[in-house]
Amino acid sequence: MNVKETVGIKAASYVKDGMIVGLGTGSTAYYMIKEIGRKVKEEKLNVIGVPTSTTSKKQAEEIGVPIKSIDEVEKVDIIIDGADEISADYQGLKGGGAALLFEKIVATYTEQVIWIVDESKMVDKLGNFPLPVEVIPYGQQQLFHLFEKKGYEPSFRMDKDQLKVTDSGHSIIDLHLKKIDDPEKLAKELDKTVGVVEHGLFLNMVNTVIIGKEDGAKLISVIR
Amino acid sequence: MNVKETVGIKAASYVKDGMIVGLGTGSTAYYMIKEIGRKVKEEKLNVIGVPTSTTSKKQAEEIGVPIKSIDEVEKVDIIIDGADEISADYQGLKGGGAALLFEKIVATYTEQVIWIVDESKMVDKLGNFPLPVEVIPYGQQQLFHLFEKKGYEPSFRMDKDQLKVTDSGHSIIDLHLKKIDDPEKLAKELDKTVGVVEHGLFLNMVNTVIIGKEDGAKLISVIR
Repeated sequence: MNVKETVGIKAASYVKDGMIVGLGTGSTAYYMIKEIGRKVKEEKLNVIGVPTSTTSKKQAEEIGVPIKSIDEVEKVDIIIDGADEISADYQGLKGGGAALLFEKIVATYTEQVIWIVDESKMVDKLGNFPLPVEVIPYGQQQLFHLFEKKGYEPSFRMDKDQLKVTDSGHSIIDLHLKKIDDPEKLAKELDKTVGVVEHGLFLNMVNTVIIGKEDGAKLISVIR
Repeated sequence: MNVKETVGIKAASYVKDGMIVGLGTGSTAYYMIKEIGRKVKEEKLNVIGVPTSTTSKKQAEEIGVPIKSIDEVEKVDIIIDGADEISADYQGLKGGGAALLFEKIVATYTEQVIWIVDESKMVDKLGNFPLPVEVIPYGQQQLFHLFEKKGYEPSFRMDKDQLKVTDSGHSIIDLHLKKIDDPEKLAKELDKTVGVVEHGLFLNMVNTVIIGKEDGAKLISVIR
């Protein structure tokens, strides 16, 4: 069993009968969805999944996890999702899979947020991984120049030789910041930037981090 | 000549040869586009229009004003646009025509911002006119409940019996606030709200206000 599978299965053990579960997007989240599907089938686990992307929706449907949209449930009990970086103070950087917008929307209405990662994602400070910013296509070249002038080293996310289009029809600009000294300040700045729909800084959000290691999974509870 | 036509024509007199001009959306802006079109045809005025909606794009094309997208120009010299309310300290509330996102994007990259209104739009404080908030459809019911809980008296913008869809494929939630005591605070709160793409508060943005009256047009220069 690989590390991603180990943490995916471990995370699924948090899902209890009757829960509404946010289904994260990515290679580790895939194993979590698969394990929930197994429990639905073999153990008659009764859950509703809320997808965070067209990808996780498709996976849940194929695996046989019943799903509803975030607007068809009152609230979500638990979300299990991956992360691209987690800092020493448990702030997250996400969006390498371009699903940051729906992931953040679902997490906003969720009681308990669990991130599942392998050890390589645990960093001192965020920013070595490029920070994804989801942007409105109209004006995106202007915004790109603005980020350039600020020294944020932007690049457009590509899909083969085309601009990547998100599930909401937006583009992604990745900021190559190397190190983010003040994530709160940067988040505020991006929040108010016209044309920015959402960004990959997930601050003060996670409750539990499950870190996959070669010899098992380590669990960290974050008190907020 | 009606008041809207008077201010529309007056505003067009600010457009000089060689300028790149943001073309606002709405009934007053329409007369401005029409007058620019007349000058292009009759006076050989050389300008490029940058539309703020599919509506103003269509109008410019029909009237014969050459257009480019905001991403095809370096910057915009002047934008002439309507407003739904302008407060005593010249803050604006816009978006009654559902074009707030592109209007704000174009205005962001514009040197001189001109708003053209009739007297009825000049108010002491903003908020009697419903504040439009452009939102991501996924999660919009959750966001609606959040606004309800905050006492913002939300309503979905409708188009006949369907939800209104903006030029970017988003929805509009109108907030019936009656009076906005602290627009800066509300803008910050909405900026950071997940699922909010943009809102109709246009703060610290206008340079010139042209107010149409029965007996002519009054001009106010706002020093920033």
